Amino acid sequence: MGQRKRGDGREQLLETALRLFGRDGVEATSLQDIADEMGVTKAGVYYHFKTKDEIVLGVVEPVFARLDAILTRAEAHRARSARIEEFVIGLVDLVLDSRIRFSALMGDPYVAKLIEQHPNLITWWHRIRMLVAGPDPDPATMVPLLIFLTGLGGPLNDPQLAALDNAVLREHLLESGRRLLQLRKRAGAATPP
Amino acid sequence: MGQRKRGDGREQLLETALRLFGRDGVEATSLQDIADEMGVTKAGVYYHFKTKDEIVLGVVEPVFARLDAILTRAEAHRARSARIEEFVIGLVDLVLDSRIRFSALMGDPYVAKLIEQHPNLITWWHRIRMLVAGPDPDPATMVPLLIFLTGLGGPLNDPQLAALDNAVLREHLLESGRRLLQLRKRAGAATPP
Repeated sequence: MGQRKRGDGREQLLETALRLFGRDGVEATSLQDIADEMGVTKAGVYYHFKTKDEIVLGVVEPVFARLDAILTRAEAHRARSARIEEFVIGLVDLVLDSRIRFSALMGDPYVAKLIEQHPNLITWWHRIRMLVAGPDPDPATMVPLLIFLTGLGGPLNDPQLAALDNAVLREHLLESGRRLLQLRKRAGAATPP
Repeated sequence: MGQRKRGDGREQLLETALRLFGRDGVEATSLQDIADEMGVTKAGVYYHFKTKDEIVLGVVEPVFARLDAILTRAEAHRARSARIEEFVIGLVDLVLDSRIRFSALMGDPYVAKLIEQHPNLITWWHRIRMLVAGPDPDPATMVPLLIFLTGLGGPLNDPQLAALDNAVLREHLLESGRRLLQLRKRAGAATPP
């Protein structure tokens, strides 16, 4: 790979970690394994991250940052339907874009537990709930919202559907979100035959 | 509890196992624990079940039997919409009726793995797919179906929604299923204000 600048170290470490997580699983990968794979000492890893949990969170940080940006963009709309539409599109695109790169982490119980304990999770959830259901959320909105958020994983875990072209899968995921959250299609959106 | 007939042994064992699974987790519960709790020898347990896996499957067997009956009932309808409606109602009622009794097993990774390997799982999945999407399933039907099947767990894992009255939760779960699978409400069904 030739010479790297010092600032690349953190990124290179995260790339290496993600590769090892995919190969051996998160549970089985140690800081020492990551150091060995990079050809550095464990101190070289410690310089950037103190624990494996910090590394896992570093790996998925770009997903969190993008979720944050999606929520901020959606919150800027005044109309409820526009807010929800922006959120649904952003979330579906985020999931589709992440599924290849982070497939090793999806469904991993170690990662799931870590994300469940993420301090920002409650904030994101509050923002999503406020965005979709408003300050006084009622079950008629919350039930379909939770079915959508939880259910998105279903088609992506099905081998046949996961093999679909991204654009096709995207359109059906969006359509499901619109049906559940009762959004009308935007003008110009493709309609099924 | 007084005297029991000999034929009660199997049922009593399954009840005891379910209680211990709920108290200590499935992983941590051994055949010996179940024998001890019942005040019988391990041979007394072996008489009914050879492995813990058999016991776990015995515990959830009534759920499988009911799913089978739901599918058979749904398959008897000629119209596609009636088949799907019957399936959605049957599934929602099954999930709602099972959630208290089997809460200890839901989300348990040991149980999830065991059910994933259940030999009937492929048959059920084929029947559900045929019922909802027909002999030539297309993504436009399969994506919302999988979102519904996977997503049902979402509201039930949410503490606020799970605490709702069964009848209220039922109506919203049914409504989500109808929206996703594009069923019209049956005449006489409650309409939202």
